Amino acid sequence: MLEAFKSHLSAAFPELMGSSFLLACSGGLDSMVLAHLCKDAGLEFELAHCNFNLRGEASESDQEFVRETADKLRIKTHIKSFDTIGYANQNKVSIQMAARALRYEWFDQLTASENHLRYIVTAHHADDALETFLINLGRGSGLEGLCGIPARTANIRRPLLAFSREDLEAYAETARIAWREDASNSETRYLRNRLRHEVIPALKAASGGFLDQFGNSVRHLDGSRALIERYMDGVFRKVSRESDGVLVFSIPALRALHPREAHLHELFRDYGFTDWKALGRLLESETGREVQSPTHRLLKHRDELLLKHRVPLDRGPWSFDPHNPAAGLPIDLTVEEVAQMHRAGKEVLYVDKETLKKELTLRKWQKGDYFYPIGLNGRKRVSKFLKDAGLSRFDKETAWILCSGKDIVWVVGHRADDRFKVTESTRKILKITWQKKSF
Amino acid sequence: MLEAFKSHLSAAFPELMGSSFLLACSGGLDSMVLAHLCKDAGLEFELAHCNFNLRGEASESDQEFVRETADKLRIKTHIKSFDTIGYANQNKVSIQMAARALRYEWFDQLTASENHLRYIVTAHHADDALETFLINLGRGSGLEGLCGIPARTANIRRPLLAFSREDLEAYAETARIAWREDASNSETRYLRNRLRHEVIPALKAASGGFLDQFGNSVRHLDGSRALIERYMDGVFRKVSRESDGVLVFSIPALRALHPREAHLHELFRDYGFTDWKALGRLLESETGREVQSPTHRLLKHRDELLLKHRVPLDRGPWSFDPHNPAAGLPIDLTVEEVAQMHRAGKEVLYVDKETLKKELTLRKWQKGDYFYPIGLNGRKRVSKFLKDAGLSRFDKETAWILCSGKDIVWVVGHRADDRFKVTESTRKILKITWQKKSF
Repeated sequence: MLEAFKSHLSAAFPELMGSSFLLACSGGLDSMVLAHLCKDAGLEFELAHCNFNLRGEASESDQEFVRETADKLRIKTHIKSFDTIGYANQNKVSIQMAARALRYEWFDQLTASENHLRYIVTAHHADDALETFLINLGRGSGLEGLCGIPARTANIRRPLLAFSREDLEAYAETARIAWREDASNSETRYLRNRLRHEVIPALKAASGGFLDQFGNSVRHLDGSRALIERYMDGVFRKVSRESDGVLVFSIPALRALHPREAHLHELFRDYGFTDWKALGRLLESETGREVQSPTHRLLKHRDELLLKHRVPLDRGPWSFDPHNPAAGLPIDLTVEEVAQMHRAGKEVLYVDKETLKKELTLRKWQKGDYFYPIGLNGRKRVSKFLKDAGLSRFDKETAWILCSGKDIVWVVGHRADDRFKVTESTRKILKITWQKKSF
Repeated sequence: MLEAFKSHLSAAFPELMGSSFLLACSGGLDSMVLAHLCKDAGLEFELAHCNFNLRGEASESDQEFVRETADKLRIKTHIKSFDTIGYANQNKVSIQMAARALRYEWFDQLTASENHLRYIVTAHHADDALETFLINLGRGSGLEGLCGIPARTANIRRPLLAFSREDLEAYAETARIAWREDASNSETRYLRNRLRHEVIPALKAASGGFLDQFGNSVRHLDGSRALIERYMDGVFRKVSRESDGVLVFSIPALRALHPREAHLHELFRDYGFTDWKALGRLLESETGREVQSPTHRLLKHRDELLLKHRVPLDRGPWSFDPHNPAAGLPIDLTVEEVAQMHRAGKEVLYVDKETLKKELTLRKWQKGDYFYPIGLNGRKRVSKFLKDAGLSRFDKETAWILCSGKDIVWVVGHRADDRFKVTESTRKILKITWQKKSF
């Protein structure tokens, strides 16, 4: 296996032969064999071991075992102990997600601070890939879940994907490599074990060369995935535009896509939407209907779907001196005294300076806000005004209010208040301009 | 199960409730349960049983069993006996392919002659789909092999795909349905049996609801396949054009496609090319290199790939009277006597009528052909002439020769012969026009 490993490296991972890397090592069969292979192949690397403190004594023994092995092999070791359960509770994620996040965060720190370590190398092999494939097949995954574990992503390299578990076991035996049973706490452990010990051996027995052919299938699927990505790039450009931090999808354009569900799935998957039937229904529902993913909100508004991040709104208020408005404001306002009014656009407000208090405040509108819209005889609720203006819920939620004391001066970008307007008797005119940003 | 079957029918196959169909029935568990379900659901149908005569006595017993069952159920039965082995030998296909071809040919005949039978219904179920998926995964298939067995194609319907083998077994037991062990002679029988009895039960045990989730995955993959087809339609139009029965692919356009292999695979798969590495090499090889599939030939010619059917050439000759040339000729020639020459294009020939024999012949060129090209002082080999003209091998192979007796009058569409040209002393001019066809 050492020769096969070496020739695989020079064919597929020449970068690992020329520079130093970090090898993620749990102490289990896979990573111990990889460590020995790398050592025997004369590569330059260091070990990184995460102690997730999930199994008491056993975690300590794993750590000790990795350290001893590293000493024996005369390799530098990095070891870090994590409060995985604490992190999981604090961030409301699964133990598995927590371990994954902690591990890669630390690896990134290590490769950033020790910049001779150019790559992170993991011991995933062909059987892992098949297990993951079958797990995802049993979850109803689409193509994206059935594509392979990539041999390279960013600075991560997986040089054992071309080898089977049997290859590793055989090498461990001939090279007398010791390892510790990998009693990981992954939630898929039970499932993985049954796949590993029952399903996959049966598959291999039923169909000769199954693992290699599976690898070919996965390469095909990777290619198919790439084609779909190219296709969807074009579709995305055709059906959407960006406006003020919101992605706007044309519903007539979406309706023209066939098959609809597959297109919707691809368009909105990256935003965390997995229920394509709900997306399909959204197209046909009335204005104001919304579906949410863990990270995003998607709103039907007339003949568009509006997509934006689910971020909690900071509603303000922010107080500011009109002579120095930009300091600390969430939006970009410029204020200048001018000799006369020019035609005011929606993003420009002219006011009678002397009607204003010294300090202005900016905030999101709230229930119960009233103002006196210019051109309207009397008072109007801001919420009613915004609704009548035909704004989408997203635009309504983010509408800004400029106040002088408790009085609304401007529903920013929409309508000025009558009480502060420039009149015949105005002596000083302030021009306030809102610089809209795309972000 | 009967209720589930009925509601599945009305949701997904309403067409089967309104019209009569042919149910393909081997006598095995799946088709016997389907026959009983259809009877119990009050549908109108007839049975079709193929006796492939592959297992001697057992084949006869299967046939007898289906006939008895049909009598009991008071359903009309169609039974046909086939010489499957003879067909396989004669057509040089596998027994399995032969059985498949014979079966569908007969079904088509039946539904064509008995036109109250609107559909062909088969008993494929979810476990069959999973078996086929795993078999193809173990063959390195791409997306096209991993997409589902379709519930409907043309006039075939598969209403049991939503049900598992356990569902069928349970119904067979409660409804006391008898069946005969399906000892099919398929080449995948050994593999299917191991998948059926070892792998799939282990998968189902490892992962609850596996079969349903697998169904979801397959629906996703079907959607992905549809996206790729839409994408490839556009790519195909961009990189290819049709010329005279040959598909011409621009190599610079093919080179611009990334990832190249996935694109080549999709572009040429339908023409029987499966070795995408060979296709990749062809792009980079010298003019004249060719790869073949069972059905097609793909030729590199300069900066193009030329694709055409692998059909044996009929080389001729065809003799004809120049006054009535179209009769029976493989190409479209028109002949007329004209008063004078106009500027001759490549597809038009002017000759001195009195230099010709009464009967002309048309044929493909052959080795050893010589002629006297106009404008050239002397004799030239046709093969050398065509090569010097820069023709691709495909164009060379299909070049036509017009002869008068043994002498070449015209390398059709390329060059006239000096001996028959119109001169000062010509009294009668014949104009021969070749009408090029796109096909």
